[in-house]
Amino acid sequence: MLVILGSKSPRRKEILELLDVDLQVYNPNVLEDIKDFKTPSEYVLKTALKKGIATKNQFPFDVVICADTVVACDGQILEKPIDKDDAFRMIKMLQNNSHYVYTGVYLGKGNEYENFVCSSKVYINSMSDEEIEEYLQTPEAYDKAGAYAIQGIFAKFIDRIEGDYYNVMGLPLSMIYQKLKKYKS
Amino acid sequence: MLVILGSKSPRRKEILELLDVDLQVYNPNVLEDIKDFKTPSEYVLKTALKKGIATKNQFPFDVVICADTVVACDGQILEKPIDKDDAFRMIKMLQNNSHYVYTGVYLGKGNEYENFVCSSKVYINSMSDEEIEEYLQTPEAYDKAGAYAIQGIFAKFIDRIEGDYYNVMGLPLSMIYQKLKKYKS
Repeated sequence: MLVILGSKSPRRKEILELLDVDLQVYNPNVLEDIKDFKTPSEYVLKTALKKGIATKNQFPFDVVICADTVVACDGQILEKPIDKDDAFRMIKMLQNNSHYVYTGVYLGKGNEYENFVCSSKVYINSMSDEEIEEYLQTPEAYDKAGAYAIQGIFAKFIDRIEGDYYNVMGLPLSMIYQKLKKYKS
Repeated sequence: MLVILGSKSPRRKEILELLDVDLQVYNPNVLEDIKDFKTPSEYVLKTALKKGIATKNQFPFDVVICADTVVACDGQILEKPIDKDDAFRMIKMLQNNSHYVYTGVYLGKGNEYENFVCSSKVYINSMSDEEIEEYLQTPEAYDKAGAYAIQGIFAKFIDRIEGDYYNVMGLPLSMIYQKLKKYKS
């Protein structure tokens, strides 16, 4: 089965490669400018839908998967940091605390699609300012929602998770595997 | 800092490589034949201690880490499967169910050491016999406690976890990172 992954994230590609599908990557390049939302779930659902529609219009006969991931902590939504100070602020907020990671997914073929969300809870140990600074010397933080990568060197700061690990990386793998079954030919 | 990893598991080596340490691998090659235990925790603690003492005796001046991991489901301890039938039996028990993964750790230098345990809970989706058979065609299952690898193609069957993801892989990374701090020179 061919799956069009409408995402430029190399992590999402790695995750889908765990499934037995042929993958083609496409960058839908839409503005992530949803303003009309009440919850993080609604935000990621609408953004994934926007990416999904743009990708489906290019690949109307193929299975399309798009996604959007944000971190929500203390009532704030954290996306990708804009610079090092912003990344420091985010990690300072996340350490010694718990937060939720929401991934909204668009999965469909032609005009038939599902738009669903998966959330995982992540607990991060307390970190000294030196540990945060040291982490921000690496390139890992800067292109990720919440300014950290669970699968990278940040892993040592993660106390525990409740939910799908791959959802924290950017795609809820087991949900996607189940939903892809109906497109198997 | 040099760390001696007393384990032949390539997964444990990968996990420790996420830390900023120099690694040397040693295979303590002890019999995992602990009979005197009441709980899975006690079993992995004693086995990790046995591996730890054997490794420490070879490297008395270095930081040594050893570990043992088992899966506990429905009151049974699952170690590595002995053959394909055994692996099938294990996965049949784990699917559509939850289980605990226990990793016992020995971490020390010379005669000073800690012996601690970390547990994670894993929920696996329901799997058809065909899905189990298909999985057992791959080499992934056969050298792992409980007959599955959370980080491999089995990932698509994992609904959620509660705890440290790396503990399920074989080493509780964040606990080890914290405990290694006192040996930093």
